Amino acid sequence: MKSYKKNDFPVSQIRRYLEPGPIVLVSSQYKGKTNIMTMGWHTVLDFTPSLIGCMITAENHSFELIKKSKECVINIPELHLAETVVDIGNCSGRDVNKFEKFGLTAAEATKIKAPLINECYANFECKIHDAKMLNTYNFFIFEVVKAHVPVSPKYPKTIHYTGDGHFMVSGKSLSLKDKFLPQNL
Amino acid sequence: MKSYKKNDFPVSQIRRYLEPGPIVLVSSQYKGKTNIMTMGWHTVLDFTPSLIGCMITAENHSFELIKKSKECVINIPELHLAETVVDIGNCSGRDVNKFEKFGLTAAEATKIKAPLINECYANFECKIHDAKMLNTYNFFIFEVVKAHVPVSPKYPKTIHYTGDGHFMVSGKSLSLKDKFLPQNL
Repeated sequence: MKSYKKNDFPVSQIRRYLEPGPIVLVSSQYKGKTNIMTMGWHTVLDFTPSLIGCMITAENHSFELIKKSKECVINIPELHLAETVVDIGNCSGRDVNKFEKFGLTAAEATKIKAPLINECYANFECKIHDAKMLNTYNFFIFEVVKAHVPVSPKYPKTIHYTGDGHFMVSGKSLSLKDKFLPQNL
Repeated sequence: MKSYKKNDFPVSQIRRYLEPGPIVLVSSQYKGKTNIMTMGWHTVLDFTPSLIGCMITAENHSFELIKKSKECVINIPELHLAETVVDIGNCSGRDVNKFEKFGLTAAEATKIKAPLINECYANFECKIHDAKMLNTYNFFIFEVVKAHVPVSPKYPKTIHYTGDGHFMVSGKSLSLKDKFLPQNL
């Protein structure tokens, strides 16, 4: 499967990849058991610390793994993984090992124990920053503590869920840099 | 400028338009003063009630208008408004009337007093549902109480901020509906 040569990337700038709203794969680990889930409800919350808010339904097997281990990896899949992204959402980690079932490679993270998904474009190692909104909204606030991003392609071919089984695939890039006030870039 | 014939749309299904991560314009009103801001940090949080979480920096003029009036409209601009979207972020509502300055039309909402932006593809009327995260994260949780969406085009040409003055423009549609379990659609 497609592989990427990744470099460290400043965690304060990961908004570049998450703000456009891609479907992501969340990998987790607790007491040696791993899992992967598909997630579309997330937002950037701050640059420094690098905070991401994520809504994860409490019924998901991943919810417990993440809550107990206090960490996870947010992985960004490209278009070639679209069918796998759907299939991952169709089964539960209670029943299957998703890395094995879908032929994905678990790579070691550097700051946490949850595995990176090697076949994804980018990997963001996360620790729980604030769990106060879990009871009311199933809303985790994570701090991204390490980011792995390839030099090329500069703009990943991400997929964005639009409901009813349809995705929007990321299209062309538009630069309006000359129009921005520098402090708003 | 481009106009749309809009219908009512089920508020429980607006994830179709916000989950893909478009840049949005937030319009607000307090004591007769209106404003518009550009926003990229938002996520869907629930279907029913239809909840959206949004991070709005407290220094923004809109922050005060929304906090005091307890409502706003989330409007989705298409590609033809891209330069306006940037220009709106470059100035403050403390100094200018943004509807006038940018030739945008304020249309009446049905359930709140904040104005819809007529030139945008879709308009979601919002009331504050929970303000408990404002002090810590500037994070509003809104309930969408009314949605206005055109029948055509089915998939809007949205713009998605990727940092450094660049946007990703929404690309082609990919249907994987046959692969989904019905409960996951």
